[in-house]
This record gives sequence, C-alpha cells and structure tokens, in this order.
Amino acid sequence: MTAAPPELAALHERAAILADLSHIHSLLFWDQNTMMPPDGAPARGDQAATLEAVSHERLTDPELGRLLDALEPWAAEQDPDADDVRLLHELRRDFEKAVRVPTSLAAEISRAAALGQAAWQEARAAADFSRFRDAFERQIELRHRYVDCFTGFDHRYDVLLDDFEPRMTTATLRPLFSELCEGLVPLVAEAATDAPVPEGGPFGGPHEVEHQRLAIMSVLEGVGFDPDGWRLDVAPHPFAQRIAPGDVRITTRYDLHDFAVAFFGALHEFGHGLYEAQIPPRLGRSLLGSPVSLGVHESQSRLWENLVGRSRPFCAWVAPRLAELLPGLDGANAEALYRRVNAVHRNLIRVEADETTYNLHIVLRFELELALIEGTLSVDDLPHAWNDGMHELLGLDVPDDAQGVLQDVHWGAGMVGYFPTYSLGNLMAAQLWEALAEDVPDDARGVLQDVHWGAGMVGYFPTYTLGNLMAAQLWETLTEDIPDVDETIGRGDFAPLREWLGEHIHAQGRRLPPAELLQRVTGRELAVVPFLRYLRGKLAGVGVLPPT
Amino acid sequence: MTAAPPELAALHERAAILADLSHIHSLLFWDQNTMMPPDGAPARGDQAATLEAVSHERLTDPELGRLLDALEPWAAEQDPDADDVRLLHELRRDFEKAVRVPTSLAAEISRAAALGQAAWQEARAAADFSRFRDAFERQIELRHRYVDCFTGFDHRYDVLLDDFEPRMTTATLRPLFSELCEGLVPLVAEAATDAPVPEGGPFGGPHEVEHQRLAIMSVLEGVGFDPDGWRLDVAPHPFAQRIAPGDVRITTRYDLHDFAVAFFGALHEFGHGLYEAQIPPRLGRSLLGSPVSLGVHESQSRLWENLVGRSRPFCAWVAPRLAELLPGLDGANAEALYRRVNAVHRNLIRVEADETTYNLHIVLRFELELALIEGTLSVDDLPHAWNDGMHELLGLDVPDDAQGVLQDVHWGAGMVGYFPTYSLGNLMAAQLWEALAEDVPDDARGVLQDVHWGAGMVGYFPTYTLGNLMAAQLWETLTEDIPDVDETIGRGDFAPLREWLGEHIHAQGRRLPPAELLQRVTGRELAVVPFLRYLRGKLAGVGVLPPT
Repeated sequence: MTAAPPELAALHERAAILADLSHIHSLLFWDQNTMMPPDGAPARGDQAATLEAVSHERLTDPELGRLLDALEPWAAEQDPDADDVRLLHELRRDFEKAVRVPTSLAAEISRAAALGQAAWQEARAAADFSRFRDAFERQIELRHRYVDCFTGFDHRYDVLLDDFEPRMTTATLRPLFSELCEGLVPLVAEAATDAPVPEGGPFGGPHEVEHQRLAIMSVLEGVGFDPDGWRLDVAPHPFAQRIAPGDVRITTRYDLHDFAVAFFGALHEFGHGLYEAQIPPRLGRSLLGSPVSLGVHESQSRLWENLVGRSRPFCAWVAPRLAELLPGLDGANAEALYRRVNAVHRNLIRVEADETTYNLHIVLRFELELALIEGTLSVDDLPHAWNDGMHELLGLDVPDDAQGVLQDVHWGAGMVGYFPTYSLGNLMAAQLWEALAEDVPDDARGVLQDVHWGAGMVGYFPTYTLGNLMAAQLWETLTEDIPDVDETIGRGDFAPLREWLGEHIHAQGRRLPPAELLQRVTGRELAVVPFLRYLRGKLAGVGVLPPT
Repeated sequence: MTAAPPELAALHERAAILADLSHIHSLLFWDQNTMMPPDGAPARGDQAATLEAVSHERLTDPELGRLLDALEPWAAEQDPDADDVRLLHELRRDFEKAVRVPTSLAAEISRAAALGQAAWQEARAAADFSRFRDAFERQIELRHRYVDCFTGFDHRYDVLLDDFEPRMTTATLRPLFSELCEGLVPLVAEAATDAPVPEGGPFGGPHEVEHQRLAIMSVLEGVGFDPDGWRLDVAPHPFAQRIAPGDVRITTRYDLHDFAVAFFGALHEFGHGLYEAQIPPRLGRSLLGSPVSLGVHESQSRLWENLVGRSRPFCAWVAPRLAELLPGLDGANAEALYRRVNAVHRNLIRVEADETTYNLHIVLRFELELALIEGTLSVDDLPHAWNDGMHELLGLDVPDDAQGVLQDVHWGAGMVGYFPTYSLGNLMAAQLWEALAEDVPDDARGVLQDVHWGAGMVGYFPTYTLGNLMAAQLWETLTEDIPDVDETIGRGDFAPLREWLGEHIHAQGRRLPPAELLQRVTGRELAVVPFLRYLRGKLAGVGVLPPT
C-alpha cells in the first residue's frame, strides 16, 4: 500500500463540486414541477441550460483527465472495492463518455429534442403519427451519430442503454425479456378480468383531497417518512428528488374519485426517496452518492408500491389506519382491499397498467426500439408495428395513435441523448421523464431545454421492467433474511425492511455496477423467475388464479 | 458610429450566464427559507458555496477583462446611455471589484463571518456583549484589510458603503443623516405617545391565520400581485426574491394576535417584488436586469408599506375589503384604522419601530459604524456608546445588550465583506440580512456559508434610511405627475401608481447609478426635506400633530 497521492484530494474536491451542481439541478427541477409560477418557465430553461453548461465544462476539464491518469498507478495497488478506487473508476467513466460527444452534436440533439417534442405534442393532440414522423426520423439519425462517438460495443443499442442502465447489454436483455414475455402473456390471459374497473377505485371514493393528503402523510410517516428530512408536495406528474442527503422530496397527485392514484403514487415515490435518503453521508457529496441505475431505482419504488404496498399484511395494517382518516372506508375489510388493489385489467395505456400487465407494455417498446436501431423497422411502419404488438401481447386493438404509439412523451420529447456525463445521474432522467409523461407545458424554452439535462429515450423503457424484475428478486432474498417480514409489515413495523434495503442496496450508492450489486445481494444474476413466481403467488392469493 | 465589435456578443453571453447563476442562487435562498426541511441545511451551505465559487470564477475570468478592454474604444463613440454601454460599464465595475480582493482574504472573511455569527448568537442569548467582543474586533480588522484592496476613495467607509449603495459616499451621507436627525428628534418628542400599544394591534386581532392569508391575497391581488408570475409564502423573516423575470416570490409571517405584522410585511415585500417584476424583459438576463442598490430597493418597499399602505385613501379602500375577510373588523371605520396604523411609539428594537422613529435607529448605527472605522470608537466602548446614543436619540434606557447593541444579526453575522462582484446583486444581501434578522439557525455550515454570498455589515444600515428618504422624494414627484393618485388609490386602482414606478424606476434596472436615477426622476439630489414634510403631514393628518 502506498500513501494516497495529492491528486486524490483534488479529485474529491472536483467530485464534490459536480455533486453540488447536480443537487442544485435537482432543486431547479423540483421547484419547476411543484412551486414555480407558470411565467417562470422560459427563464428556468435558461437557468437549467447554464447550470448544465457549467457542469459539463467541469466534467470535461482536461485537468480532470490528468488527475485521473495520475491516480491510476496508485489505484491499481488498492483494494478494488475501496470507495476511492470506485470513485476513480466512476469518474473516469463519466469523463470519458462526456469528452467523446462533441459539443456541437450535443447541441444538435438538444435542439432536435425541442423541435421533436413540439411535433409530438401537435401529433398527439391530432392523434396523427404522420405529423411526428419527420421529427422522429431525425432523432433516430442523431441517436446513430451519438452511438458513433463510442467504440467497443457489441450492439449499437448497448450504447443507448448504458446511459440509463450502466453496463447492461442487448445480449442480456433480449433473452430476459423474451422469457418474461412467454411467462406473462398466458398469465394475463388467465388472470385478467373484463369486468369494468369499479367507480371510485379500490378505496371506494370520492374522498376529499385534504382527507387523502392526511391519510397519506399518516401512512408515509408509518413507513419511514421523516418530516425533518423529507417533504411531500403535489405534482401533476409525480416524482421523487433528493436535493441533499437530508432533503428528500417526494410528490404525488390527487384524484378526488380514486384514492389509489395518490396512495400508490406516494408509496412508489417513497421507495425512490428512501433509496436516496439512505445513501450514507460519507458518499453524499461525491459521485458515488447517487443511485446506480434507473433499473435499481425503479426496483426500490416498485418494491414499496407493489411488493409491500399491495401485499396482504400491508393491507391488513393500512386498512384500519386509512378508515380512521377516510370517511366511508371500511377498515375491517382488509382482505377485500387486498383483492381490489390486485385486480388485473388489460389497458391500452402504460401508465394506467396494473402490476401484472405492465411489463408487456415495456416489452413492446423494447422490441420496437431495437428494431428501429437495427434498421429492420422504418419510422413509417412504427404505428402499424405498435398496433400489431399490442394485439399480440395484450389482445387489445388500438383505436388511434394517441392511445397507441404517441402515448408516451419519451419518443416525443425526442430521442435525446442522455448525457450521463453531465453529472446529473440517471435519477433525474427517470424523474424528468416520469414527470413529463402525458403532457408538457407549451413553452419550448422552458421544459424543452431541460430535456437535455439528463433525458433521452431509446434504451430507457427497459429500465422500468428491470426494476420490476429486480424488486421481485431482491424480495426473495429479503424474505430469506427476514423470514417474519410479513408479520412485521402487518403490525406496521417497517424498520427491518428499511434497514435491510439500506444495508444491501442504498448504502452502496453508485459504488457497484447494477449487475454486480444484484449478484452480491441475491447471489445470482438478474432473472425472470422470481418475478413470475411472485406474480403467480400474488394472483393465487387474491383468488384470481387457482391456489399454487 | 461604428458597428458593434464581435466581442459585444461574447460579453452579452457572459452577462447572461452571470445573471442565470445569480437567479439560481436566489432560488436556493428562497427554498432554504420557505421549503427546505431542516436536515437539508448543511448541504445547502455546500451548494451555495459551490455556486458562489462558480460565479466568482466566471466574473474574474481574465478573458472577461480582455473583452471589456477590447470594447472600450467602441463604447467611447456610443451614446453613454445606451444599454450596451451601461452594461459594459457595470460589468467592468463588478469585474474590477472582484479581481481586487484576493481569494484568500475572501475565504478569511467568510470563515470569520461563520465564527462571528456563532459568537454573536451565544452573546445575544446571554445578553453579554463581552462574549462577542473578540470576534467583532476581528471583523473590523478584516474590513480594514478589505478596504486596503481598493484605492481612490475619500473615506475608508466609502468602500464598504459602495458594496450596498454604489457610488454613495460618507461625505454625502453625513450631512444628510445629520439633517434627518435634527428633524426627527423633536418630531418624535412631539408626536410619540406613551400609551401602550393596543392588544391585538391596529386591526383588533386575534384573527385566524387562514383568514389573514386570504385577506392578504385579496389585497395583494388588488394592488397588482399576479398569480401567474408571483408566489406568496410564509417565512420567519420575510423577504422578496426574484427567481426570474416572470417569477417573483414574496413572503410574510403571521402573528395570530396582530394582523399588521403579516399585512404590512406583505405590502413591504410587494414593493420589493414589484420593482423586480417590472424590470423590463430586455434587461432580464443581463447584469443590468437587477435593482440598482439597496437604498432604491428599500425605497420601493417602504413606498408601498408606508406611503401607500398607511395613507388615508388606502385605508379607505382596504378597510371594507378586509372587513369582509377578517371577522370582527369594522370596515366602516377607515379613519380609525388610519390613525391606529400611524401611531408613534418609542421602541428599543429597530425591527419593531414605526415609520417616524425608525430612521433614528439607523442614524445610531451609522454613527457607530463610522466611529469604529475611523478608529475613534473602540470595540470595548461600543455597548456604552450604543446606550448613550439610544438615550440621546430616542430617550430610552437600554436594559441589556440583547435589547441594545446585540439586537441585529448584521454585526453578529460578522462584518462580512459584501462582494458585489460575486454577481448576486445587492438585493440578495438585503434579503439575506432581513431574513437573518433577530435569530438564525444553529448550523454554521448552513446559514453561515450563505453569509458570504452577498452579505456584509458595515455600510449596510444606511441603505434602510436612504430607502425611506428616496421613497418620500419619489412620492412628491409622483403626486405632481399623478395629481389624483389619492383618488385612484381610494378606489383601488393601483395601475397608475404601478406604471409610474415601472416607467421611472423599475424599467431602468441597474442602468443608472442610484444618485443619477433619483436626479433624473425627481430633478434633484437626495434630500431629507421631502421625508420630514411627508412625516409632518401624515402625523398632522392622523391628529398626532397640530394641523399644518
């Protein structure tokens, strides 16, 4: 072991500044989506772009490259798992990705995103894909130019995927999604009901918004929301955002007629927030102090939303609690609630899909993206391919493009390269895109300049499904480690669950690549079986499938 | 006229980036004081410091100096009143101030501010100046080292003053304040009542906070608060902040027992906010798009709080409006309200002082600061000098240091040099200091790192009084231009007033130095007479003095 060279302190300082700038960016984003008066939008775009430019300038500073080079010989002699070595590794990764993309291309992608999103909005309003066609083709072309900046990959799609899910490859995803699809299609056929979704949702609304809010605060404080370090606000497109290690902000939205919207939305964002809140302080002001990937992030949100929030013991704990705060809710009927929140319905719209059908929506997008990038599908043929896929996977006929290929902003806002190198972390992209989903303000300078902060499309969708798969796989390990987790949830003791997640996932920050993280925690590679096993068990439990 | 050289566009771009960074800083400040959960404080200090460093680096970039030099010959041939020439001039001013102060001294001042504020807090809690003595002496020493960075001034205090009130000098202030003092001391003696302040304040509280809030929103929307471009929030130490040209945020605080606290606080901040809101869009993303000085800023807030808000026609307009929203208030008795909100009471505490006595508090601080800088007063003798001055000016005996020399954070937080060059604008300092007034969070890394954003003490207090003087002087011109302004206020038509302020003051941004601005608008130099005339008229109007 040699003593740490002086360059190490300089590297830490640079990482700290990049982390600060990223957190400031998070605040701009949070504010824009919760507090900012509408007339602030144009200037917010400028502010975000300026902050972005400052971050990018710092990340691509040749002096950073010199520091990284100077530290290599020292790092080679250290424990590869040491924080400093991991930091060096991750900073080099970000630096090299950043310097490979010429500023002119980044600017072009940014501009195209703005134009693309405007075209998408118009096309979606008219339910007419043809109005979006040219803009989308331009995006595909720019994505290819982005891929051309890199070398050493097996598949062009890998380069895009890597921006959201580091080190994930098409070769891994393809069989995984294929297996998932084979499991889900018959499962949905068996489990889905054609009965209409009940009026008032599973909680029998309407419920006054203020009652909903108090009920959610009560539940959140029960699961671990700490008012000294968290906020809950309203956002039309809910997201979670960490402004600082002690400052985690989650949002939800309220539907007067369906409490489930706010309730499961809040639990979902709580899962994201808890990941961020439990990243240890020593990593807080460093590149390592951010979630490692969108997939892992989504695994945390879906775990709380579905594996915890839609579980029998959770329903047993939460039903009487909610009954106190939501007039008209029957708290004694936890079992009925459990069944209602786990009903399976086919739905054309991804964001309205239930736990069982959801991933088929992602499989569809993944296959289409891959075909577009491989060149086996033309942009002109995309709507047709979408409609065919929807029929094949979910048995649904798509009535128009707005309810089909144009439903997500992801492609609309424009195939923007996600520049992870811009130091913002994948998280912001997830949040940005979820927040943008469905509709966006008109002003191109406002939201659209934000797009290039950390957004992009191709290669993004799979992370949603990766999150669902990881959540189920983590849950199997968790229940081995905490055999009485159902019992603790049933009595409202969420500390063992939080601590297990904190120790095994959250404490790592970005230290380990996602695949290595999952391997270490669960002892195996990412797999489909735990998710399908979980779904089958759940659906049998609620009586939708026969007992296993 | 020669064509603009290419350097001009580069200069604009740099000014735009500095403006963006300054606005982002404003957002950090606003959020910290309204929304941030308490555990976010330590990291917020880091974020602010990083943003500060980034701004400072950009402002002191030698390339900026080169651009400024290159543009001089061109500027010399232009209309000196042209925006571009003014921008060049102001940027050079900021640049030169920034490069003169060595980073090491700036860091020392920052550190000393943190230590000084901690010492002040301890001393204030113990009501014992001696515990603050050493830290304060260190601040004075650092202020002198700061002054030593500059040349070409007549008085050392001028250098400190210039950071808050550009181009204001001790030679101008001294006779002005002396004249003011001579006018005010007998006026207070004649007008002050020893009757106790009525329970429930002038509006006869208590009034529920939500009723107060709705009443204030109603009044604010009446005077020109536009929900599309403004926010009203709660802050323990109210301030106004512009995040962007279309995004002005004001705050107030609610006292259950005294509606006047929230009401006049909101009107005061509305005045600040309107200044910022009416800066024209063409200056919005430029160094010129900020208020020109703390004094001018304060003139706008005091104008709305006092000259408008405590006027007879305003009381006539607002009383019935408030009566509808504040149960128990008698809306017909506008005249009684007018008298109650204009009562004169002697008070030991500046922030509780009324319109008539307020400026004597500032005169006291100005004279003590000047004596400290001139070396005719030692730090050890400061409490004694304070108590003597309070007796002389207001006839009050100071029972302890906490109600005397230790009452304001300004000296406590520590004589910090205000680095206008850091591009944050004087506004932030005003707001920071007003927000900090009285007490501050414990965490030194949180608030105290903020201190060096744009704060400082010596030379700051006079701007409060300058604002009051300017407001009265502007009002005389305004009533000449709009002879029926009382009538328009009485019927709730504030548009002529807003427009006059917008055209004459707000539209200039930072284009003109404060003295030139006042000269152009009122046709004369800053004077005391209009203020005294206004006060005498007001006090006669409410029956405190005999009719004039």
